[in-house]
Amino acid sequence: MLTNPRADRVRAVRALSKRPVRERTGRFVVEGPQGVREAVRYAGASVRDVYATPEAAERYTADILAPAREAGLWIHEVAPEVLAAMSGTDAPQGVLAVVDVAGATLEEVITRCPRLLVLLTHVRDPGNAGTVIRAADAAGADAVLVSGASVDVHAPKVVRSTAGSLFHLPVVTGLEIRATLRHLSAHGIRTYAADGAGTTLLPDADLRSPHCWVMGNEAWGLTGDVLAACDDVVRVPIHGRAESLNLAMAATVCLYASAEARSGGPTYG
Amino acid sequence: MLTNPRADRVRAVRALSKRPVRERTGRFVVEGPQGVREAVRYAGASVRDVYATPEAAERYTADILAPAREAGLWIHEVAPEVLAAMSGTDAPQGVLAVVDVAGATLEEVITRCPRLLVLLTHVRDPGNAGTVIRAADAAGADAVLVSGASVDVHAPKVVRSTAGSLFHLPVVTGLEIRATLRHLSAHGIRTYAADGAGTTLLPDADLRSPHCWVMGNEAWGLTGDVLAACDDVVRVPIHGRAESLNLAMAATVCLYASAEARSGGPTYG
Repeated sequence: MLTNPRADRVRAVRALSKRPVRERTGRFVVEGPQGVREAVRYAGASVRDVYATPEAAERYTADILAPAREAGLWIHEVAPEVLAAMSGTDAPQGVLAVVDVAGATLEEVITRCPRLLVLLTHVRDPGNAGTVIRAADAAGADAVLVSGASVDVHAPKVVRSTAGSLFHLPVVTGLEIRATLRHLSAHGIRTYAADGAGTTLLPDADLRSPHCWVMGNEAWGLTGDVLAACDDVVRVPIHGRAESLNLAMAATVCLYASAEARSGGPTYG
Repeated sequence: MLTNPRADRVRAVRALSKRPVRERTGRFVVEGPQGVREAVRYAGASVRDVYATPEAAERYTADILAPAREAGLWIHEVAPEVLAAMSGTDAPQGVLAVVDVAGATLEEVITRCPRLLVLLTHVRDPGNAGTVIRAADAAGADAVLVSGASVDVHAPKVVRSTAGSLFHLPVVTGLEIRATLRHLSAHGIRTYAADGAGTTLLPDADLRSPHCWVMGNEAWGLTGDVLAACDDVVRVPIHGRAESLNLAMAATVCLYASAEARSGGPTYG
């Protein structure tokens, strides 16, 4: 059992909370049982090490430790103070994994004929980015695309707020926004900017064709040239006196409207 | 101009960050231009004092100070350090108001024949509570009902995350959950528990009749007796591998499905 919170290995894990270290090593940290369980289950080949306190190792035997052992992963028992030293949070809940960045590409995503995508550009709040990834997963989207000007989706706060969804669908990062929009269009995927200034109301948008929602910055939205480059600018209707929805709420409503159209199922009302 | 951050009046405003003080005085604090503007616009009779730094007073003359003056409200110029001392946040953005709790009652809400309501019980996270109030407003709900076991909706973090919506629709607090469910049923308002274990899928729920969404705790949801007391238990479909949506996302999706059904408008797709 690893008991020294000042060991080199502990420092190396802790250093992954810094973006330059993640970029240099191509690794990131997943904290807590939900995230680690989903990583082991859906991205086992990318999991380098699982660290668990003795208590957590016992509690999560069935859904984390046993599957991890079966997959031949490295599992290390660590003292609670070692786990705390590895983690950026006060309560890492006894288990943590170091995972290789998957590095999906736009080409790979497009090859699979996606029908529903979401593209984040200049999204800066970790909680928002994570929530959108979770919403995309729940709505059955085929992938999440992220421009280079957005928050790092492998930052601890983003990883946490995806609640495991980061391992459920491809997340392509570092994209250049305009090239990506052109690329999507060239492959028959319609691009819809979600923006309060849109003239098309969400219920009137064509959501049966393959399409990609484009979501901008929390405060200032999308730039004029991005709006112009999209096939349509769509707004979520506001029925009361609220000025707007926040980014995560708007993305969730748009993605669920797409999911409903895609399932072709019963319509609301 | 008020320049002493240690003045009694400053301490009295700061003390409103504590729930017992809010309950004793029946007042709460709204920080930042968006919240103060909406309070002045939609709840002017409840606004006791507006505090603004000279810079903010100039910047927000048209949309806050002039309307406040016209409504005969008390406006006080304060030094930036006084505003900082009044506020719980690092950046109160130059303007703050002390407002009387409106104190809407369930009877008043029911008298107006509401068609869409949301009831929060045991919701503990301020950001979630505020976001649900904002979503309810955006979806055109008639009121938000809050059980006594939930976070105080007049806490600074809740007020902030409503983005002004707290002043746009009645928010009834301190309700007893089971008595409220019975009361709604007696007035022909169907009660729908939003829960991942529901057997009715959202697109199949009857959203044309007057109804109330019932949302439970972030971690453990609704208790068995509340689920049993509701007319139906409805779940948002999960199309991908995500386990669930978080509370605010689920509430937003449910409320928007209701709004669509209510507007009877074009269907998704």
